[in-house]
Amino acid sequence: MTWQQLTDEQQQEVQRQLHIIKRGAADIVPEEALKQKVMKAVVSGIPLKVKLGLDPSAPDIHIGHTVVLQKLRQFQDLGHEVQLIIGDFTGRIGDPTGKSETRKQLSEEDVQRNAQTYQTQLTKILDLSKTTFYYNSAWLGELKFDDVLKLAGKVTVARMLERDDFAKRYAANQPIHVHEFFYPLMQGYDSVSLETDIELGGTDQTFNILMGRTLQGAYEMKEGQVAIMMPLLEGLDGVQKMSKSLRNYIGIDEHSNDIFGKTMSIPDTLMLKYYELTTTLSHTDLQELRQGLEEGTIHPRDAKMKLAKSYVSMYHGAQAADEAEQHFITVFQKKALPGEIEEQLLRVNLLEEGQISIIQLLVALDLQASNGEARRSVEQGAVKINEQKIAAIHAKITPMDGDIVQVGKRKFVRLKLS
Amino acid sequence: MTWQQLTDEQQQEVQRQLHIIKRGAADIVPEEALKQKVMKAVVSGIPLKVKLGLDPSAPDIHIGHTVVLQKLRQFQDLGHEVQLIIGDFTGRIGDPTGKSETRKQLSEEDVQRNAQTYQTQLTKILDLSKTTFYYNSAWLGELKFDDVLKLAGKVTVARMLERDDFAKRYAANQPIHVHEFFYPLMQGYDSVSLETDIELGGTDQTFNILMGRTLQGAYEMKEGQVAIMMPLLEGLDGVQKMSKSLRNYIGIDEHSNDIFGKTMSIPDTLMLKYYELTTTLSHTDLQELRQGLEEGTIHPRDAKMKLAKSYVSMYHGAQAADEAEQHFITVFQKKALPGEIEEQLLRVNLLEEGQISIIQLLVALDLQASNGEARRSVEQGAVKINEQKIAAIHAKITPMDGDIVQVGKRKFVRLKLS
Repeated sequence: MTWQQLTDEQQQEVQRQLHIIKRGAADIVPEEALKQKVMKAVVSGIPLKVKLGLDPSAPDIHIGHTVVLQKLRQFQDLGHEVQLIIGDFTGRIGDPTGKSETRKQLSEEDVQRNAQTYQTQLTKILDLSKTTFYYNSAWLGELKFDDVLKLAGKVTVARMLERDDFAKRYAANQPIHVHEFFYPLMQGYDSVSLETDIELGGTDQTFNILMGRTLQGAYEMKEGQVAIMMPLLEGLDGVQKMSKSLRNYIGIDEHSNDIFGKTMSIPDTLMLKYYELTTTLSHTDLQELRQGLEEGTIHPRDAKMKLAKSYVSMYHGAQAADEAEQHFITVFQKKALPGEIEEQLLRVNLLEEGQISIIQLLVALDLQASNGEARRSVEQGAVKINEQKIAAIHAKITPMDGDIVQVGKRKFVRLKLS
Repeated sequence: MTWQQLTDEQQQEVQRQLHIIKRGAADIVPEEALKQKVMKAVVSGIPLKVKLGLDPSAPDIHIGHTVVLQKLRQFQDLGHEVQLIIGDFTGRIGDPTGKSETRKQLSEEDVQRNAQTYQTQLTKILDLSKTTFYYNSAWLGELKFDDVLKLAGKVTVARMLERDDFAKRYAANQPIHVHEFFYPLMQGYDSVSLETDIELGGTDQTFNILMGRTLQGAYEMKEGQVAIMMPLLEGLDGVQKMSKSLRNYIGIDEHSNDIFGKTMSIPDTLMLKYYELTTTLSHTDLQELRQGLEEGTIHPRDAKMKLAKSYVSMYHGAQAADEAEQHFITVFQKKALPGEIEEQLLRVNLLEEGQISIIQLLVALDLQASNGEARRSVEQGAVKINEQKIAAIHAKITPMDGDIVQVGKRKFVRLKLS
């Protein structure tokens, strides 16, 4: 299909769609194929099939995940259809060597429960009427040994060892088990099976998504899928990729005060990136915001409050957003302590000559789960008693009834000796 | 089980068996495990399961193959049982990339026919009453994707790339397709499935056979199989491994005169190796022969005649052996031309001014299949006309009725112009 065959209206529609699709994307491979696919969809009226694979073991969605989810939503708003793959086949296998902690074997019930959680969480971002959920065991579970060999025959060992993590581990003499080669092959085969037009993922998924394109070609589909890689979002620390294990994330199911407070803690420099990739702000509004910040007519704190509020609004509704904002203003902006502080008992038999170490105190009050965590928060200057910072990890405290013990910006207790 | 637990008789029997089993073997891994297995068999009376994998695509057995087959026969004579695996699963898959000539896809009928040919040929060496044929599709064909992943999870990519041919190809940037890793895994899984005690193969099979031992361990069998590697037999050229593709072989189904003649052409230095590895000559007789040759009381030619005769006798019977010997003596030892030489017509219109090139002549008379072959045999000095060597490849010949054209020691025609 050539550009000239399209009517003016169709051409405009294709350009409108491409503009939205490309917004924020880190890489599109191959870009020309994307244009072809959108042209066909516009002319034929047949929606594109846009795929995202979901990890069946971790259905706890955070703002980092929403980068691709928002892009999917944009596709839906353009009239296209979303294929969400629950990787239950992979999940049910786990790691056959039993050595990997990230590949725990999931039961049928785990998978079902996780899928349910996904649906509940995703309904806040996606249009579920244009979303189909698939379990990849439906096709992968049916493959027999000869099918698997055929699949494995489509790629070379050298190509596999080009994948970043494999390359590093191979060079460092760390074991790569042969079955690990099949994770990208399975992901790619999902695209073969579902005749996917476009697959989305983070830039760390580039290898796996391009494998889908390769395999579709090898299984003689006319045109392979287009890979759209979205940027990885830095977490609260502003440096590393947002992830649960790094504890630098904002979970969409977290308490609205936490979502709000955490959002307020992201570095100013990342704010526009968060806006662009994880909100539904229009291109024009985003340009205005950018300009306002540059010219100083918008204060970064106000912009960040708006971002925080919009997250709470998206994931807990407008009322919760108003309340979280109020809470934040009261507690932090006015530098006052929150109106209602929970009272917490401290057993006096923990005291030695009326004293207790700060570490022990934090753990005893359940403000921290472990000595290690307590030590880190003291070292980071996050601990205050009666608004007085306690920064020495060996500090001894003489606790009194009514003392306010505080960790970070959002955890408080009022102490009562018992 | 310890050595001391055996009776004197049992100890003697174990030693007798080990002596026979080890004879001629290039390597046994691990040797101590072999002793344990034989001890158990002797004490329990339960025969060992000794496995050999057969290539389903090439059922044309030559003397090189008989090295492992004779060892299997020795096991049978010691009371053990032989598992012959027809690799029909591998054969039916062929090479999924379609790039390998050696992995042609075989039909069900091909596999059946080849298996039949194996049976016919093997009956000349093995005791079929102690031999069980297996088709490995019986278990490999039943594996599903998750079983395959479990299998692949037992080994690392690095271990695979240690296999000689993989290492070389990887280093040379030649493609290795991922499915190729499964050939050793399948061979190993055969041993898991059949609970093999001992697997035999040539030294070039070391990697694959040890894979069986690894996999049995990984599938939690108490003790892995023992690998017995037999030496590779050099072919007629005395240098390269005997193989069909190098045309340096003696096929057991060849004409008895060819078997006899080819055997007479092996280098004297290899004769004892052939005797040891491919005949049933006893250890004592072999020692006598070795001594006789060293002391000059036995002429090498006589020893080789005996070897040639024993091959013909094994594979075509005693009468054929006598006749082949007589033929050889008449034709070659007496340096006479054979009594009956076939007459072959040569069309005069191939002549230019009464002449024809030697290459063209050999091809026209069907003495050689191609110009290339004809050229090589002239270069090697194998071509004679009327007992006169023709060594120049550009030689022009003036053929006459009744000329005797000879290639090598066994091909003759009497020429007739037509």
